[in-house]
Amino acid sequence: MAASGEEVKLLGAWASPYVIRVKIALELKGVSYEYLEQQLGNNKSELLIKSNPVYKKVPVLIHKDRPICESAIIIQYIDEVWAGTGPSILPSDPYERAIALFWAGYIDDTCFPALLKIIKVKAENEKAEGIKQSFVGLGLIEEAYEKSFKEKPFFGGDNVGYLDIAFESFLCWVKMTEKISGIKLFDEAKFPLLAKWAERFDSVTTLKEHIPKTDKMVELYWKVIKPIWDTSAPNN
Amino acid sequence: MAASGEEVKLLGAWASPYVIRVKIALELKGVSYEYLEQQLGNNKSELLIKSNPVYKKVPVLIHKDRPICESAIIIQYIDEVWAGTGPSILPSDPYERAIALFWAGYIDDTCFPALLKIIKVKAENEKAEGIKQSFVGLGLIEEAYEKSFKEKPFFGGDNVGYLDIAFESFLCWVKMTEKISGIKLFDEAKFPLLAKWAERFDSVTTLKEHIPKTDKMVELYWKVIKPIWDTSAPNN
Repeated sequence: MAASGEEVKLLGAWASPYVIRVKIALELKGVSYEYLEQQLGNNKSELLIKSNPVYKKVPVLIHKDRPICESAIIIQYIDEVWAGTGPSILPSDPYERAIALFWAGYIDDTCFPALLKIIKVKAENEKAEGIKQSFVGLGLIEEAYEKSFKEKPFFGGDNVGYLDIAFESFLCWVKMTEKISGIKLFDEAKFPLLAKWAERFDSVTTLKEHIPKTDKMVELYWKVIKPIWDTSAPNN
Repeated sequence: MAASGEEVKLLGAWASPYVIRVKIALELKGVSYEYLEQQLGNNKSELLIKSNPVYKKVPVLIHKDRPICESAIIIQYIDEVWAGTGPSILPSDPYERAIALFWAGYIDDTCFPALLKIIKVKAENEKAEGIKQSFVGLGLIEEAYEKSFKEKPFFGGDNVGYLDIAFESFLCWVKMTEKISGIKLFDEAKFPLLAKWAERFDSVTTLKEHIPKTDKMVELYWKVIKPIWDTSAPNN
């Protein structure tokens, strides 16, 4: 039982890849928390606006009544505050940590924007560019796996770590995009090491529970995400 | 004297805010290194392409013959590898660390793009938006200083830390932008706490040496940066 003021709250949206990451990190550390699902679009809660006044975005972790924003920062915070419980999420070796942070950053800054082009952007040439870049991105991660991680079952070594969490949360958006666009992106023949990795991740059932089912994500896309995108500025 | 293979190399470009950060971090830790200035534009060196094949960008730190890319990741690496020497660059308290990382990320992801709009984008309405967003950005950092940092001389507390380094490297681009555009952005009346902070940073002469002079940056802008931007895709 957490002491007064020690309670942990997570402001999230279930389909957000960044929220999924934080949920898995809290699960790995065995941290109890209250989950507060937030509305997508313009109906932001007062708590979210107050907790993340700069970006007004999920995820926000509230611990000791203090909000922490941005998933990468939240996960480092969780890893440090609950250092004594559960496995380390980020590698303890500085070089391995740098490599994990680099590829997680690559997923966020390059792979996600490329993927979103496929289902968000109207111009056909930009969609084609999104498809091409998505294959390049998956290819580079496959290569990185081959070069730096293949001796162990996970990017994190013997256990799921930060890059595993980042890649898995990306992968569930890849699968949603495949269903919406009809384009096979996560091709096992092209990315055999990542395909094997995905099988191993799937077998960790306690973590897999936090990954939304593809059909549910596709439904959310048509009912909620696409209408929001359609009424916002182009390409934003 | 570094042992064989222990040598530290930094691939940089002197005006890059991200390179400046790494130089200051190495200075704070008293790490000796070989600095290899890289060409801007399309004349990338083989060493840069080999060391950072994904982005082909500076800074790259090479330590024990292994390249580490992305300034935020490099600085965390430096802080951990040389933990025993010099002051800690990132706060050791997890919450303070989260706050420093958050605002440094805000500078990178929001303030820099806004600033670049003023001198890079051709459309007048986008330039105006860049000016507005730059004032908003500086205002939020001033507020953050007021709220979280004003008890101590630096964002890092009694000594210069990660957020100080990130903000100072941004500020030298602000000053360049002011000279080029003729617009006063870093207005002491609007941002009195940050103005006082800047005076304090300026007095740390060993660090200040790594900050390029504004006139030299303006010259680089007209001679090198603008011609590169003018021949690249719009808004890129």
